[in-house]
Amino acid sequence: MTKYLPLGGDGMKSVRIAILGFGNVGQGVWKVLTTNKEEVTRRSGYEIEVAKILVRDINKTRDIDVPKDILTTDPEEIFDDNSIKIVVELMGGLNPAKDYMLKAIEKGKHVVTANKLVIATEGTQLFRAANKQKVMLCYEASVAGGIPVIHGLNESLTANKIEKVIGIINGTTNYILTKMTREGMDFREALKLAQEKGFAEADPTSDVEGYDAVYKLSILSSLAFGTNVSVDSIYREGITNIEPIDIQYAGEFGYTIKLLAIVKDENNSLEVRVHPAMVPSTHPIANVNDSFNAIFIKGNAVGDLVFIGRGAGDLPTGSAVVGDIISILRSNLDLSNGANTKMKQEQIEIKDMDETECEYYIRISAKDAPGVLGEVTSIFGKNNVSLSSVIQKGEYTEYVPVVYITHKTLERNIRKSIDAISKLPSIKKVNNIIRVEKF
Amino acid sequence: MTKYLPLGGDGMKSVRIAILGFGNVGQGVWKVLTTNKEEVTRRSGYEIEVAKILVRDINKTRDIDVPKDILTTDPEEIFDDNSIKIVVELMGGLNPAKDYMLKAIEKGKHVVTANKLVIATEGTQLFRAANKQKVMLCYEASVAGGIPVIHGLNESLTANKIEKVIGIINGTTNYILTKMTREGMDFREALKLAQEKGFAEADPTSDVEGYDAVYKLSILSSLAFGTNVSVDSIYREGITNIEPIDIQYAGEFGYTIKLLAIVKDENNSLEVRVHPAMVPSTHPIANVNDSFNAIFIKGNAVGDLVFIGRGAGDLPTGSAVVGDIISILRSNLDLSNGANTKMKQEQIEIKDMDETECEYYIRISAKDAPGVLGEVTSIFGKNNVSLSSVIQKGEYTEYVPVVYITHKTLERNIRKSIDAISKLPSIKKVNNIIRVEKF
Repeated sequence: MTKYLPLGGDGMKSVRIAILGFGNVGQGVWKVLTTNKEEVTRRSGYEIEVAKILVRDINKTRDIDVPKDILTTDPEEIFDDNSIKIVVELMGGLNPAKDYMLKAIEKGKHVVTANKLVIATEGTQLFRAANKQKVMLCYEASVAGGIPVIHGLNESLTANKIEKVIGIINGTTNYILTKMTREGMDFREALKLAQEKGFAEADPTSDVEGYDAVYKLSILSSLAFGTNVSVDSIYREGITNIEPIDIQYAGEFGYTIKLLAIVKDENNSLEVRVHPAMVPSTHPIANVNDSFNAIFIKGNAVGDLVFIGRGAGDLPTGSAVVGDIISILRSNLDLSNGANTKMKQEQIEIKDMDETECEYYIRISAKDAPGVLGEVTSIFGKNNVSLSSVIQKGEYTEYVPVVYITHKTLERNIRKSIDAISKLPSIKKVNNIIRVEKF
Repeated sequence: MTKYLPLGGDGMKSVRIAILGFGNVGQGVWKVLTTNKEEVTRRSGYEIEVAKILVRDINKTRDIDVPKDILTTDPEEIFDDNSIKIVVELMGGLNPAKDYMLKAIEKGKHVVTANKLVIATEGTQLFRAANKQKVMLCYEASVAGGIPVIHGLNESLTANKIEKVIGIINGTTNYILTKMTREGMDFREALKLAQEKGFAEADPTSDVEGYDAVYKLSILSSLAFGTNVSVDSIYREGITNIEPIDIQYAGEFGYTIKLLAIVKDENNSLEVRVHPAMVPSTHPIANVNDSFNAIFIKGNAVGDLVFIGRGAGDLPTGSAVVGDIISILRSNLDLSNGANTKMKQEQIEIKDMDETECEYYIRISAKDAPGVLGEVTSIFGKNNVSLSSVIQKGEYTEYVPVVYITHKTLERNIRKSIDAISKLPSIKKVNNIIRVEKF
């Protein structure tokens, strides 16, 4: 590998890069590189030239003014150009993004990507290839947009044994839950508003059912614990069942409902899960609203850390991508020490969801008759679930909502209890079960 | 410089380092290196051996079990040992810490320090020496303990033009203000408690008068804006004048009082100041309590970012120091590209405090008589200060407290107004002036 690259004007080194995909994020990267050229050059030590941009249609009208001669529809032009040292993949989706990244790596190019799907599902293969070729594969933008959490775990907190990472890492659901909490909207209304504002897609499944958060949590967990945490091993529950009444009760108990992505090391076995949770309203994370993201990290030396910022958007994501490019340039494009994180030799076990422990909020509709609550309490007791609070609000209807908060207990015990309770003739429905997460 | 160092067992490279000073932080570093040996070795690619520790007294009884033969009272033993590649300075104070760092650099050793005083006041000379010797000078631990804000500004947010940095970077004052806010203590009581708990020193001047925050802000400002911001150029005001009644009023207006360190780029001229300020109680920073620190950063690409964490303590500071050691090792101890931040060529102007703009909270004791408030309002008007709220609470005494909140105005206008108001015969005293900081 060439270590010293051609000099630009003023004895400044220069480097040629290529961008694959020129949608929202691609254009954000272009904007950051042009608007902040002075800062980027000073801090990287290189003048960065975007030599090629891979697009589907060269003649498409774009909001942004880019010289036409750098646009191409032929990826091979980029892979075959030895003067291009860094390839920035911003196409999204699994393929051809993954194949293109692999090709770039095999040609000895460093790769920067914002692609959570590829890193979460095909990361192992890509990192193996990158280590073999002694190139860097950077992916700060794949999780939590502009928040430097990958850098944090990978560079700043390296002295720590990480104990847990808890994040609000999906902006769409945080926006929806904020509207439900602050303005009393129900899920449908809040989703519709999010779609109108461009925070949710026409098909919102990936966000509201927690899939997006699962990909990102897989990446965070693998990095934090130096082990491969596959997407399939992560428990997932979305926010579609959260009703305004749950948010009201949460408030009464001093909690705020957030969609959390959680990974914890519990005696050398990992709990990894994505689900809505009640968090203490006084915790800084409870006050992270709208489409903002937040990550709580507990390290055995650093203690509690929280990062809050924008999890999406062209410029915040562009900030992360260009930050990665600058990191590669500051290592002088020379990575003989292997800059990609080394994983542990042994695989860490993932706990079965039944074996995880939490406090639980349980809301049921019970017949307003003598003895009913006694039956429920006795089922909890038999299954070793001990209760910390009960609220029953007398409304003069046949069925009344009753809400329980449990002490810390095994998920298995809760499942058994719910199974038995829902079979009681006096219970109309177990409406909702929401975990309570303390930090 | 040797690029490849001797291999330890398992083909693992190894490196010898020295620690100068073995107080609280030095012992924290030792604990992190020993407790997290596995993580540190995996992530750095090196086995780290603490070869020497400089102490004042070898035979002093220590809580921590360190082999006596690595303790020394002779610094030259360390500088003259070519096998020692990294020197960690944790002595504190200006000298001999600075001389020792310089000596280590001149001997081609990388330096890691937690010393805010030396970096803030002598940083220019040290970085010049480090760049000349192509060694790294790392100082993550010098600001905000375990929060990776130096790394954030220096590595992750490099793609941004930074617009402002606002921090709670002194844990002692945050602890005192938290006690005053939550438990209604006055300053003296809260200070006494902080001293009892070990959060404040016997002579608390450096913390409560804002000097400590000034050193840290000088470091943050220089890094964020690529220019030297000297300690002397920073406006400073401590928290000793904050009274419980100010905290009460703040609450009524929806604000929380924090000691803030602020640097802002206003049209290519910097506002740099440390003073107590009212911040909106809904902002995540308002909920950062006790001895926790927080840093708010606004970049032109990333938007708003907040980092929250422990600003002091042996292990959080140890986390930052060992993180710096690992960064040096991951660059393979080879820094031909110059890893220290490059400053801008031109110096950025620092705004005169008179020319800064803020909203202001002003509390006065006024005679409860007709026409008094009219006089005050008219003075504000003549000086172009426009008011957004006034609270006067009728108490049946000769003098009543009157509180004003102004719209954004020049400090100069406030000073002129206060000067005139305090001369009015009907005004007993201008009790307090506190800036209101929006984010």
